[in-house]
Amino acid sequence: MNKKVILDVDTGVDDALGILLAIRSGELDILGITTVNGNVSLEQATVNTCKILQLAGAEHIPVVKGADRPMIRSTYFEHRIHGKDGLGGALKDMPVNKQVEDGHAVDFIIDQVRRYPGEVTLVMTAPLTNLAIAIMKYPELVRQVKEVVVMGGVVRDFGNVTPTAEYNIYVDPEAAKLVFKAGFSPLTLVGLDVTRKALLTEEHIASLGDSPLAHYVKESTADYMQRYYERNGVRACALHDPLAVGVALNRELVTAKPYYVDVETRSELCDGQTVCDFQNRLSQAANVHVCLEVAADEFLRLFIRALRG
Amino acid sequence: MNKKVILDVDTGVDDALGILLAIRSGELDILGITTVNGNVSLEQATVNTCKILQLAGAEHIPVVKGADRPMIRSTYFEHRIHGKDGLGGALKDMPVNKQVEDGHAVDFIIDQVRRYPGEVTLVMTAPLTNLAIAIMKYPELVRQVKEVVVMGGVVRDFGNVTPTAEYNIYVDPEAAKLVFKAGFSPLTLVGLDVTRKALLTEEHIASLGDSPLAHYVKESTADYMQRYYERNGVRACALHDPLAVGVALNRELVTAKPYYVDVETRSELCDGQTVCDFQNRLSQAANVHVCLEVAADEFLRLFIRALRG
Amino acid sequence: MNKKVILDVDTGVDDALGILLAIRSGELDILGITTVNGNVSLEQATVNTCKILQLAGAEHIPVVKGADRPMIRSTYFEHRIHGKDGLGGALKDMPVNKQVEDGHAVDFIIDQVRRYPGEVTLVMTAPLTNLAIAIMKYPELVRQVKEVVVMGGVVRDFGNVTPTAEYNIYVDPEAAKLVFKAGFSPLTLVGLDVTRKALLTEEHIASLGDSPLAHYVKESTADYMQRYYERNGVRACALHDPLAVGVALNRELVTAKPYYVDVETRSELCDGQTVCDFQNRLSQAANVHVCLEVAADEFLRLFIRALRG
Amino acid sequence: MNKKVILDVDTGVDDALGILLAIRSGELDILGITTVNGNVSLEQATVNTCKILQLAGAEHIPVVKGADRPMIRSTYFEHRIHGKDGLGGALKDMPVNKQVEDGHAVDFIIDQVRRYPGEVTLVMTAPLTNLAIAIMKYPELVRQVKEVVVMGGVVRDFGNVTPTAEYNIYVDPEAAKLVFKAGFSPLTLVGLDVTRKALLTEEHIASLGDSPLAHYVKESTADYMQRYYERNGVRACALHDPLAVGVALNRELVTAKPYYVDVETRSELCDGQTVCDFQNRLSQAANVHVCLEVAADEFLRLFIRALRG
Repeated sequence: MNKKVILDVDTGVDDALGILLAIRSGELDILGITTVNGNVSLEQATVNTCKILQLAGAEHIPVVKGADRPMIRSTYFEHRIHGKDGLGGALKDMPVNKQVEDGHAVDFIIDQVRRYPGEVTLVMTAPLTNLAIAIMKYPELVRQVKEVVVMGGVVRDFGNVTPTAEYNIYVDPEAAKLVFKAGFSPLTLVGLDVTRKALLTEEHIASLGDSPLAHYVKESTADYMQRYYERNGVRACALHDPLAVGVALNRELVTAKPYYVDVETRSELCDGQTVCDFQNRLSQAANVHVCLEVAADEFLRLFIRALRG
Repeated sequence: MNKKVILDVDTGVDDALGILLAIRSGELDILGITTVNGNVSLEQATVNTCKILQLAGAEHIPVVKGADRPMIRSTYFEHRIHGKDGLGGALKDMPVNKQVEDGHAVDFIIDQVRRYPGEVTLVMTAPLTNLAIAIMKYPELVRQVKEVVVMGGVVRDFGNVTPTAEYNIYVDPEAAKLVFKAGFSPLTLVGLDVTRKALLTEEHIASLGDSPLAHYVKESTADYMQRYYERNGVRACALHDPLAVGVALNRELVTAKPYYVDVETRSELCDGQTVCDFQNRLSQAANVHVCLEVAADEFLRLFIRALRG
Repeated sequence: MNKKVILDVDTGVDDALGILLAIRSGELDILGITTVNGNVSLEQATVNTCKILQLAGAEHIPVVKGADRPMIRSTYFEHRIHGKDGLGGALKDMPVNKQVEDGHAVDFIIDQVRRYPGEVTLVMTAPLTNLAIAIMKYPELVRQVKEVVVMGGVVRDFGNVTPTAEYNIYVDPEAAKLVFKAGFSPLTLVGLDVTRKALLTEEHIASLGDSPLAHYVKESTADYMQRYYERNGVRACALHDPLAVGVALNRELVTAKPYYVDVETRSELCDGQTVCDFQNRLSQAANVHVCLEVAADEFLRLFIRALRG
Repeated sequence: MNKKVILDVDTGVDDALGILLAIRSGELDILGITTVNGNVSLEQATVNTCKILQLAGAEHIPVVKGADRPMIRSTYFEHRIHGKDGLGGALKDMPVNKQVEDGHAVDFIIDQVRRYPGEVTLVMTAPLTNLAIAIMKYPELVRQVKEVVVMGGVVRDFGNVTPTAEYNIYVDPEAAKLVFKAGFSPLTLVGLDVTRKALLTEEHIASLGDSPLAHYVKESTADYMQRYYERNGVRACALHDPLAVGVALNRELVTAKPYYVDVETRSELCDGQTVCDFQNRLSQAANVHVCLEVAADEFLRLFIRALRG
C-alpha cells in the first residue's frame, strides 16, 4: 500500500519538481496538495500547482488553498530566485483548467488526518503557516499524524536569506517555532546542509530525454542554473524541496539524528535561525530529526528515474 | 433590532459578569459564546460559561470551544485571582446540563460573520487567540465584522501581570499583535486605564436584591473584593470584562480616541505591553480606538439595572 | 558649606539653562562640568559649555571632555530641537576663549569623587555614557558618590523620541541600564513626568529684566517656544535639565518615591523605555527615586530669582 | 626587533599556557599583561597571572588589573572547566611575591598604544571588556593599534556555552560587539572552529621533558584532559588561548578570511553568537579576519618547542 501524503507547497521552481517527483514516483498516495504564501503569493502558488498537475496528467489530486500570509509578519516573496510567476518562466501560457477544492488547507489537513489516523505523512516544502494554524485549531493532530518531513532550516552551513536563516523558516519563524515545539514524532528537518548537496546538473536534465516534462524541467531551471553558475562556476540547481519528498519516499537517503532544535523569533540579526543543540547544552528533549548527510547520487538517480518515467 | 454579538471568553469572575450583563441587558442578540484558554483552562472556561448560562436561564445560547493554549507561548492561568475553578468558588456544585456545540470557535466566528456580513460585533474579553486564528484562516473576516471591542491592554496606567502588561494581551501577545494589525475598523480597546475605574462595591451588590443572581454575584466576587480591600482599603471589584460589554451596548460610556497601538512581543521586560503612540512619533495610521475616560457611575447604573432584572 | 557637584552635560538649550541655574544659585560648589555626546556632538557640547561659562563670568569652572558617542549605538543628534549649534542660534558669534582641561571626563569624575568621598553630587543632564564608563573603570565610585540626580526617562507620560522613551535614556540605554543597576543611593530620576510641568513662559522671561543673560535666555529659547506654541497653543519652554539642577539644590521641589526601574535595551519598539515597577511585580529592590510630582511654581521662582541675579 | 604585545587575560588553564607560550617564544616584547573578569574573578585571574610569571621567571612583565565584571551583564565563571582557582589545581601553594602595577588596565592599554603608535599588537584571550572600555575612553586607539588578535567566537561549529556561543564572547557580548564594530584593522578572530583542532595530547606533554614548567603543564591540564576523554574518548586539551598567541607569532599558522561579523546581544536563545556573513547578505564591509583553517601540527610543534625551552 502506498504511503499517504499531503504536500504543502508555495510552488516555485523546486516545489514543482518536488510535486512531480511525488507523483511520478508511483509510491505515494497523494491525498491532496495544500498551498500557502511563500516564494510567491498564495494565488500564484495555487495556479502553479494546478499547472504542474495538468502537466503531469494528475488533475485528480485535490488542491486546497491555505494561508495567504505568514502568521504575524509580512509576506516576503523570492521573485529574484523563482521568477515573477514562480516557475522560472515556464508554463506561462498554459491555461488553468483544474479547479481547486472548496474549503481551507488547514481544514483539509485536519480532516484527512482524522480520516486516516496514524497514516498520513505531511511533506512541508513551504513556510509552515498552514500546519501551525492546523495545530492551533486541532492540537490532537500532533499525535494522529504519522510523520512530518520539513524542507527548511540549516544547522551548520550558512542561510540563504540572512547569514543564518533559511527561507521557509525565515518567512514565518513563529509558525516554525510552533511546529517544532508541538511534539510531532518524528519530525524530520531536511535543511540546506543536505539539500545544497542534491544538485541537479545539465547532464541530469539531458538524461531525462525529450518528453514535455523533460522540457519543462529544463526550461524552469534555466535561470536558476545560470545564477548558480555565476556564483559557483557550475551549472546546477539545488533540489531543496524534491529532497524532502525523497526523504518521504526513502528515509535511508539521509542520515538524520535527533536533536533539540529551536527557532529564533526575537532577534533582528538571527530571526529565523534554526538553532540545533548538538551537545544538549539546553537540556531539552530532542524534538527534530536533523538531516546531516545525504546520499546525493542515490537521490539524484531516484529523481531522474521518476521524472524520466 | 438588537445588535448581533459574539462573546469570546475565558470565563473567570469578571467574564461571567460580562456574560450576565450581555444577557440581561436585553439589547443584544448573542449569536454565541466562544471559549478560550486564559484565566483558566479551556475546559474550565467552557464549563463555567455553561453554568453561567444555566444560572441566567439562557441555555439556548450556543457555546463553542476554541483554542486550548496561546498561539506560541505556554498557558498562564490566574487561579490566584479567579479561584481554582475561575468563579471564585461560586456554582461549585451546579451540575452542567448544557451541551456545547460541535465545531471550533474559530469556524463559528467565521461562519456567523459570513452569515451576517457587516452586522456582527465581536466582544473579546480573553486572550485574543481565537480571533487571531480566525483572521489567519479567513482574512476577509476583517472587513466583514461590524466592530471589535477588546478588553485588554493599558496605555497610561501600570499593568496587572508585569509592570507594563495587562493579562489578556500578555498571555498571547502574538495574537494581540496580529489582531491589532489586521485592520478592523473600529477596534476599541477597553484597557485597565478605564476598567480600573469601573468599581463594583458592596453597596452596589446590596442593591441587586435577593435573587439567585444577586447571590451569585456576591459569592463569586467575595474573594476578589477581599484582596482588593487588602491592597486598597476598599471592598470593590473592577468590572474589566463587563465594561467591554458595556461599550458594546453604549459606546457613549467611554471616551475613546484613535491611535496607533502596537504590541511588544520580543522583549523579556516589556512583553505584552500595548504601546500607544499618542504623539504619532512612529508615523503609523491609527488602528485602535483607545478608551481614555469612562462614565463609571453611568456604567455601574447600567450594570446594576441589568442584573437586578 | 556649598554642596559639591559635577554637572554632566550635552549642552543644548536646556542644559545651558541648567548650568546657568547651578552657577547663579550661589549654593553649589561646581567642581567641574563634564561634556558628552548627545543633543549635539561632543565638540559642540564642549564649545557651548565654554560659551555659557563665559557668558556667566564663570570661566574658572573646569570643563572636561568625555565620550564622543554612546557605548554601543550610533549618535542621535537633536538639531531639530536645539538648533544646529545646540543653543537655538544664540551666542553664535561669541569667541571661545576658555580652555578645556586635559584628561577625560571619566577620570575627572573618578578623581573628584575619590578626593571628596561621600561629598559629591553628580547632576547628569545628558546620556549617561560618561558615568557608565566611570563605573566600569572604578566600581567603588558607586559607594563614594553622595548622590546622583539624572534628568531622564518617563514613567507615566509618553516619551519624547519614541512613544515610550525619553531622549537621554534612548540615546544610550545600555549606559542607563548600567547606571540604574549600579547601586547608587540615592539615584533620583527627574523624568518627563515632572519636567514637562516646569514650563518657562514669556512672562517669566520678561521678568528676568534686561541683562545680557536675560537676552540670552530669550534668544536661545525662542525657537523652542515657537514649536511648543505650534503644538500646544502656548509659548513655553520645558525646563528639563534645569529641574535636575533644581532637585540638587532643593530636594523638596519634587515628590519622589523609590521603585525598581529597569531600562529596555533589547526591543525595537520599546528601546530606551524606563520601566518603573510601581507595584513591585518583579520583586526587585527599589533602585531609583522616581519623581512623580513637582512644585512647579516654586521651582520657577527659584529659577527666575537665580537668573535675575 | 620583537613584536610589541599586550596580553589581556582571565587566567584559567589555557590563558596560562598562552602566557607561557608568549614568554618562552622569545619573539615577543610583552609590554604588559592586563587582567579581567572571565573564567575566574578579576582577583583570581590576577593572582594566577602573577604565579605564571613567577613560574616562568618573568616577574619583570607588568601586570595591571582591569574590569571586575562584564559591561552590563553579571559575571559567569567557568570553575567547572578551570577548577576553583582557575589553574586546574596547579600552583595552589605558590606564594605570590610579584606586585601588580598601580592604575587600570584600560589606561595601561591606552598609554602603551599612545607610546608606541602603530606598533602594539593586542592579544585578547578573555572577555573583551577592557578593550571595549578603552575604545570608549579613547576612540583614537582603534587607528593607533597595530593589530588585534581575539580568541573568541565560533562561526561554523557549535558553541561551548550555548548551542551557538563561545565563552569569551558570551560573557560580554556588548563588549565584543563594540570591539568588532570599532574598525580595528586587522582584527583576527581565532575561534573554536580552529582552536578545537589545536589539541595538546599526553604525548605532547611527555615530550616537554621533566622541568618544573613541564610538570606544571601536566598538572594544570590533567582534569581538563580527563573531561575531554570522557566526552571524546581521547585525552587531550584544546589550546584555545595559546593559538591566539600563536597567530600573533606567526600569522601563517591559520587561514583567515575577511568577513562581516556581528554579535547577537538581544536574544535569549542566541546571545553571544558571532554571526559571520559568509555570503555578504547584509551588504556590510568586512570587519573581522575569521580563522577557518589551522596548521595544527605546526602550531603544536611551535608550542612544544617553546615550552621545552
